[in-house]
Amino acid sequence: MGRKAFYLTPGPSELYFTVESWLKQAFKEDIGSISHRSADFKKIYEEADGNLRALLGIPQGHTILFTNSATEIFQHLLLNCVEKRSAHFVNGAFSERFYEYALMLGLDARKVAAPFGGPCPVEDFQAQEDTELICVTHNETSSGVMIPEHNIAQIKANNPGSLLAVDAVSSIPYPKFDFNAVDSMFFSVQKGMGLPAGLGVWIVNEACAEKSARLKESGQITGTYTDLEEMLVQAEKFQTVTTPNVLGIYLLAKVSGDMLTKGADVIRAETENKAGIGYYVLENLPGMKPLVEAKTYRSKTVLVAEETQEGAAAACLARLKEAGIEAGDGYGPYKKTQIRIANFPTHSKELFEKAMDALEARSKA
Amino acid sequence: MGRKAFYLTPGPSELYFTVESWLKQAFKEDIGSISHRSADFKKIYEEADGNLRALLGIPQGHTILFTNSATEIFQHLLLNCVEKRSAHFVNGAFSERFYEYALMLGLDARKVAAPFGGPCPVEDFQAQEDTELICVTHNETSSGVMIPEHNIAQIKANNPGSLLAVDAVSSIPYPKFDFNAVDSMFFSVQKGMGLPAGLGVWIVNEACAEKSARLKESGQITGTYTDLEEMLVQAEKFQTVTTPNVLGIYLLAKVSGDMLTKGADVIRAETENKAGIGYYVLENLPGMKPLVEAKTYRSKTVLVAEETQEGAAAACLARLKEAGIEAGDGYGPYKKTQIRIANFPTHSKELFEKAMDALEARSKA
Repeated sequence: MGRKAFYLTPGPSELYFTVESWLKQAFKEDIGSISHRSADFKKIYEEADGNLRALLGIPQGHTILFTNSATEIFQHLLLNCVEKRSAHFVNGAFSERFYEYALMLGLDARKVAAPFGGPCPVEDFQAQEDTELICVTHNETSSGVMIPEHNIAQIKANNPGSLLAVDAVSSIPYPKFDFNAVDSMFFSVQKGMGLPAGLGVWIVNEACAEKSARLKESGQITGTYTDLEEMLVQAEKFQTVTTPNVLGIYLLAKVSGDMLTKGADVIRAETENKAGIGYYVLENLPGMKPLVEAKTYRSKTVLVAEETQEGAAAACLARLKEAGIEAGDGYGPYKKTQIRIANFPTHSKELFEKAMDALEARSKA
Repeated sequence: MGRKAFYLTPGPSELYFTVESWLKQAFKEDIGSISHRSADFKKIYEEADGNLRALLGIPQGHTILFTNSATEIFQHLLLNCVEKRSAHFVNGAFSERFYEYALMLGLDARKVAAPFGGPCPVEDFQAQEDTELICVTHNETSSGVMIPEHNIAQIKANNPGSLLAVDAVSSIPYPKFDFNAVDSMFFSVQKGMGLPAGLGVWIVNEACAEKSARLKESGQITGTYTDLEEMLVQAEKFQTVTTPNVLGIYLLAKVSGDMLTKGADVIRAETENKAGIGYYVLENLPGMKPLVEAKTYRSKTVLVAEETQEGAAAACLARLKEAGIEAGDGYGPYKKTQIRIANFPTHSKELFEKAMDALEARSKA
């Protein structure tokens, strides 16, 4: 193959196998030169929009917007949808950051915390009165905890007066959300979509739009280029407020089309199958164990394991590297004692099994 | 060549001629898969940083930050560097937008306006007391007015108590700024740098950093992912706060390196030479005339002409299209009565002359 390494890192990660040929096609079509105000660009946006709706089950009442990273969407959501009070389920570094951004913006942000690697107690959650936005991370990239979709819908059922925002950065295109319960969802493309970094996707419904309009009406600053009303006016025409990553949107349109050809259900089944193999191996690996104890909450797309013997995590990564595979080390303070292995659609069963074989070979050595 | 068209549009525009081969190289180096927290990425940032400093004469006291578009930097600057009062030279759509963003953020923003196509009266400008930031657009992409660099330095000399921010979106890499007078400068890469859209470059000095720190200290919200202090902490390590457009930064590093090999002065001279040819043709074209009357203020990188006979602008664009060249129509209300022809380093003399020949042939026909 001539590749130096294969990337089972939790994002950026392996590119979807069709990306390179789409990039060649992009050059033939002058995608790097066309105006973002042209009919050609609008067609690309429309194609991405249609493919994402079909792939992820996004209904017409929700609008698909493009930003540049998912982290930025934390701020956009908070400015547009919260005047005073937000609630945040925090069980890892990224959900913590969402909460911190709310504090930085001067909001009365409440945190419902779980230990790192533990699930958040979402099932019976009753938000404090006047909570305008509840934020939940479907899949914590740092700790590998995944909240089942039906539990997320339950949050909304228990708190119908609050908007619900779901961070699905590192699980898309795996989950099937009930968009009747999800007011906003967002992700970035360099993880499960197998694309180069530099593009975030923000999905909002009319309730978010109405909230933003009300706040703006009352004098709240909802952002400039990220004012939701302005973004929606542009999106209606398949346009963006600022000059977007045109090439990134083109690749997203094409790759989501390729994924549709394969089938969302096939991708989902393959992901579960590979995750099953992965956790089986991690459970039986001497010196290591899956970080998330309860199987229900184990991420299907980012498998995190921690060492029970000193040096075991580093040995795992070294063994993978020997097999030509880059995986992720632990997040932040767990850098040396945990490993993170991504299981995205672009990681073929063959590649994933090769990685698992490499880990097992180590344990037998 | 097999190309459908060549793009003399004012951005996005022709890609620099080395971009396609650098993209191939990027695939060989797994640039789409590497982590933005890796040593490999830091090297890419460092390379881009070094090449941009050399190409644009940016001193060490200024920091180079990456964003996703230049328009976003309007907001970042206003949040980080203004508590109450900003001043804006407005002579076209983009400088107007900068001013409008200041109003949207609730600032006491003052506008110094010039007619569309006219130069702003910058020379003797004395800002109102307590003006914290003065914003000037070096090259108005909408109207083709360029303010000479020495006049920009004069603004600072006359207003030493205010920070000076320069929008050089569509003129970089042409201008040579005196960075002793310029506290902040920014541009995007899809214009003069000949790169795909999706990356903005924001340059700030210590005075901006100090101002932002003071405002934050006093309780002002300076943004979350765009809080300057946090951005500078990351930039110190050649890192970014959010996941950046890694591929875009890689291409910027490489293309700015290629431009350095050619030489900043050679690029500047070539640009002036082509612009001279362009204005000569536009001055002598029946039914058309350069929009900007005073030669001193005519943009070297975006040549704007307006029709003096109805239908002449459309005829120019049609004639160019026949020759396989896309140029820009007029901005906003001038869509049908003006044309905009970009003159970026990636537009070779041959291509530019081919366009001028096509325009002249029309006038002779």
